[in-house]
Amino acid sequence: MNTFFRYLIIVAIFIGLYSKNSNAQQRDSIVIKHIFNEVFTHGQSHENLKYLCKEIGPRISGSNAAEKAIQWAFEKLKDSHADSVWLQEVMVPHWVRGQKEEAFLFSKNKKIKLAICALGNSVGTPEKGIKSTVIEVKTFEELRAIPTEKVKGKIVYFSRPFPDTVLFGGLAYGLTVNQRSQGPIEAAKKGAIGVIVRSMTHAHDQYPHTGATQYKDSFPAIPACAISTEDAAILSSTLQEDPNAQVEFKQHCKMLDEVKSYNVVAELKGTEKPEEIIVLGAHIDSWDIGEGAHDDGAGVVQCIEALQTLKKLQISTKRSVRIVLFINEENGLRGGLKYAELAYTNKEKHIAAIETDAGGFMPRHIGFAIAKEQLFKFKTWENLLAPYGVQAIDENGGGADIGPLKKQGALIIGFHPDGQKYFDYHHTENDVFEHVNKRELQFGSVVLAGLIYLISEHGIE
Amino acid sequence: MNTFFRYLIIVAIFIGLYSKNSNAQQRDSIVIKHIFNEVFTHGQSHENLKYLCKEIGPRISGSNAAEKAIQWAFEKLKDSHADSVWLQEVMVPHWVRGQKEEAFLFSKNKKIKLAICALGNSVGTPEKGIKSTVIEVKTFEELRAIPTEKVKGKIVYFSRPFPDTVLFGGLAYGLTVNQRSQGPIEAAKKGAIGVIVRSMTHAHDQYPHTGATQYKDSFPAIPACAISTEDAAILSSTLQEDPNAQVEFKQHCKMLDEVKSYNVVAELKGTEKPEEIIVLGAHIDSWDIGEGAHDDGAGVVQCIEALQTLKKLQISTKRSVRIVLFINEENGLRGGLKYAELAYTNKEKHIAAIETDAGGFMPRHIGFAIAKEQLFKFKTWENLLAPYGVQAIDENGGGADIGPLKKQGALIIGFHPDGQKYFDYHHTENDVFEHVNKRELQFGSVVLAGLIYLISEHGIE
Repeated sequence: MNTFFRYLIIVAIFIGLYSKNSNAQQRDSIVIKHIFNEVFTHGQSHENLKYLCKEIGPRISGSNAAEKAIQWAFEKLKDSHADSVWLQEVMVPHWVRGQKEEAFLFSKNKKIKLAICALGNSVGTPEKGIKSTVIEVKTFEELRAIPTEKVKGKIVYFSRPFPDTVLFGGLAYGLTVNQRSQGPIEAAKKGAIGVIVRSMTHAHDQYPHTGATQYKDSFPAIPACAISTEDAAILSSTLQEDPNAQVEFKQHCKMLDEVKSYNVVAELKGTEKPEEIIVLGAHIDSWDIGEGAHDDGAGVVQCIEALQTLKKLQISTKRSVRIVLFINEENGLRGGLKYAELAYTNKEKHIAAIETDAGGFMPRHIGFAIAKEQLFKFKTWENLLAPYGVQAIDENGGGADIGPLKKQGALIIGFHPDGQKYFDYHHTENDVFEHVNKRELQFGSVVLAGLIYLISEHGIE
Repeated sequence: MNTFFRYLIIVAIFIGLYSKNSNAQQRDSIVIKHIFNEVFTHGQSHENLKYLCKEIGPRISGSNAAEKAIQWAFEKLKDSHADSVWLQEVMVPHWVRGQKEEAFLFSKNKKIKLAICALGNSVGTPEKGIKSTVIEVKTFEELRAIPTEKVKGKIVYFSRPFPDTVLFGGLAYGLTVNQRSQGPIEAAKKGAIGVIVRSMTHAHDQYPHTGATQYKDSFPAIPACAISTEDAAILSSTLQEDPNAQVEFKQHCKMLDEVKSYNVVAELKGTEKPEEIIVLGAHIDSWDIGEGAHDDGAGVVQCIEALQTLKKLQISTKRSVRIVLFINEENGLRGGLKYAELAYTNKEKHIAAIETDAGGFMPRHIGFAIAKEQLFKFKTWENLLAPYGVQAIDENGGGADIGPLKKQGALIIGFHPDGQKYFDYHHTENDVFEHVNKRELQFGSVVLAGLIYLISEHGIE
């Protein structure tokens, strides 16, 4: 065979591959546009979110509202004609806030009211509250450097703010949240009697942000609360002027006995490789303040909408698709752990898992938790999803509930909508239905439905 | 020279070019990160917007508030140490709304209040209002097909909604806005006595959306108003059931004599090619309802912030940069036309003009109004601007005020932030400061400052 013929054959193969690929892309692009049209003309995510937020309301693990939300979602998924819908039993913690917290700052004959709320899982204070001078620190290192006798009996105030020059809210959160999650342990090691944490947000307002905290058995469990950023500024400036200023706070929260609860699972059986499972998940529990609209009502209704849309358009999936609404993401992750445990016990093969738990904002990035050099296959999907807001597919995958599936070989995929405002609402009274825009929410549904369609169609190899 | 050496030389040139290019990109990337850091730590756009919205308020051309805004912006730009700041005199229309509009729907003994507002530039009704049965149409073709005697003396109601399946708000606007801008002419041709237009928005709420309309001398100027989308739905369903239903509406608006006003211009003189001018513009007028926060207070404060940031960081620009705050974008475009006229008279060379007039939302696209195949140079800037929200640089350039500069050879560049919510607020009472997010606004400032820096540094050839 001469060189010219060899060349011709190579060109022919190349054209063949290219046009096959190009035809597939064209077909995928049309399917996703159909999904968009269906969601934007008949989608019910916004109405569903209204119901979840306004009729059911906040739904912390163990609460009646959580049980109602589970039943409601179960029925919704049944009505959507999933091939099967079931509940996975799981024991969850049952933490209650009790009556509203109170806090005051006392300095030079002035008594200033502070906006606080108990951190999730925190113990309460004694009935009459706790009152003490305050040690303000920005880092654990700073706290560790202070002699124990100076901290003993005091309230520790962690005041490291969200850094302004970090591009994304999620990253700013990652750089500060250890104050909230580990602060009470660090403070208890030093003999402190209570903890105040600056709220995890870029916003300057009067909303304190709750969120899970932890204790260690080896140290006393001390009451811990979040303070609004505006009042954090007041507290810091007061302490500058008057190091003897005292804070008094009262909170009535406590951990009750564990309660039986459930993950909700719905499945579309794969037509060609039913044994390969793709999970699309969100968490059905929320914090007990606000309505859990962005966190994570938006994710829940998007998952339901993705399934409804595939069914309505009669798009059959080559691989099996599971919608999983996890319980207890906020203060225990029991749902995510249980799901992975059952997948292991039942020898299921999970090829990929996607979580939507970053608010009902415009889609921006999708992260596949693999090495950058393996991304090239998924990079070709950027064009398909770009019209619906996806700026880039990158390697920053992740998700609290789906994390435990990694051990079983699932590719962990994060759905990252635009994150500038998420932490304005996150874990506050202000996370309500009114702050979720209908079209932005729907764009998320489209991208998620499109993504599970693409994975189901093309696999992940 | 043998082939090997030729090859070596080509490789050497390639590496040289690449590393030159790569070094330049690295330097540019660092400059833009400096801009980001400065804006996000010391930027004043959000405070400035609060002042413009809350202290000065809505600022329709010809109003006292418009003059105040011009003076305020002039001082702000002077204080920012621009090389020169000046006003360009221009005569503008002076339309006033008068007392609040009223409208009622009468059907089968029921009287239903409707939320309306006069369209900008509209004539008022007689003192007692106008009352008539209603002809509902979705298109001008539909109206033209109705015999004149059936329209004569009636109110024409243009009810074509924003299409749900169009991806971007701006496009949906383009597909429907002729009802508002041309509707009164088309209705007057048929002898109608008034016009009602469904508001230009995807939102379902009670806010009517004003906006400019037009008349033609050859047809009578008839009063025209916008109706909220919720009431548009009520009006349509009532007309379905009862074609004899009548609408009555009253509005007190009128056009007064023209008034002297100004564009505000500030310049940073170019260090290498001062004769090449780059314009960054926004419009300082707004509608008379709401606060003109997204439209276009956001653009105004971003322009000011871009200049302030370049000055503070002592970034000198090779080419001259002009901030232009145009008057009368909303109902006449006199400022944009005057600026281009003076540029022509003064034989100025404008190489590029950018406008920010699409709200203080996260940056998404930048459009250069050139042929797609000429975009490649600017495409290399995508990476530089991606961290700040820019998803793509494309060929969809444009901008009302800068449009007239096209004739003089300026490359027309559009700044397109995420557009899903813009038309929720656009031209309504609800376009207020509270709906502009500080960080999103600031990301816009960064991209705009970065963009004028890049153009100034590298030119547009």
